Amino acid sequence: MEAVDIRHAEPSDYQPIISVINDWWGGRNMSDMLPKLFFNHFRETSFVAESSGKIVGFLIGFLSQTFQDEAYIHFAGVHPDYRKMGLGRALYERFFDVARNLGRTVVRCVTSPVNKGSIAFHLRIGFSIERSETIVEGICVAKNYDGHGGDRVLFSKTLNA
Amino acid sequence: MEAVDIRHAEPSDYQPIISVINDWWGGRNMSDMLPKLFFNHFRETSFVAESSGKIVGFLIGFLSQTFQDEAYIHFAGVHPDYRKMGLGRALYERFFDVARNLGRTVVRCVTSPVNKGSIAFHLRIGFSIERSETIVEGICVAKNYDGHGGDRVLFSKTLNA
Repeated sequence: MEAVDIRHAEPSDYQPIISVINDWWGGRNMSDMLPKLFFNHFRETSFVAESSGKIVGFLIGFLSQTFQDEAYIHFAGVHPDYRKMGLGRALYERFFDVARNLGRTVVRCVTSPVNKGSIAFHLRIGFSIERSETIVEGICVAKNYDGHGGDRVLFSKTLNA
Repeated sequence: MEAVDIRHAEPSDYQPIISVINDWWGGRNMSDMLPKLFFNHFRETSFVAESSGKIVGFLIGFLSQTFQDEAYIHFAGVHPDYRKMGLGRALYERFFDVARNLGRTVVRCVTSPVNKGSIAFHLRIGFSIERSETIVEGICVAKNYDGHGGDRVLFSKTLNA
């Protein structure tokens, strides 16, 4: 395959990403969850992966403004044709490096319980699932966490110095 | 009317707010645009207005991490029965005070062109509309700005020292 470059996100990346995001998520309606503000105001902790000028992956993250030791990944996706090549891991590691350099020691994110691929990915790269009362198919799930009845799996990972 | 108190937002405010938000916006589906992360990680710049223990308004904002002089208001709403009493203005002024104290001099936000009440409110409290090529009913509109074809009116306001 062609080389893939990872760089900081820019506002001009928004339209190309928002126009493919529902497809990358297998038809789920994801685009309302990704307003443009993240591409304007959180560029230092957001990244785009490009191959031959085409966006093939992205990660949108920020530094918690309430918890000075925490960083958060809001959204990350990889083009279906570019999966299983380590690109998701590379995007997360870029984020971990930046967060660590800015003094953050914990990274958090959430995913939907239906997204088994995402759950497996986060476990593989070292995230733990937060305990909760409700267990679905062996996995702790925070019920009714996001939106109207949106259950979520809550992940956290400690960054090593 | 009963007294209204304004305090910082907390994670426990999320469910009460997300369960009324579509109603407060006249039935528009807004809830996907307000993930819980804002109630966890941006509490210092987010506020809830309460009357007799009931939430009657809220404002969700953050400090730009890309532009050190800017702050951004992502979402703000007031219960329909508590409008036209200055509560929206009071929430924005709380945000302006916090942003100013944290060294920010510009506040930005966006709204949908269909939301004439929101446009009038922002003009009334001193926001300006950013110029753009497209003008709809006399108002500059950024075409295809957010999501799939979501036009937006872009506002900015300078905070006086």
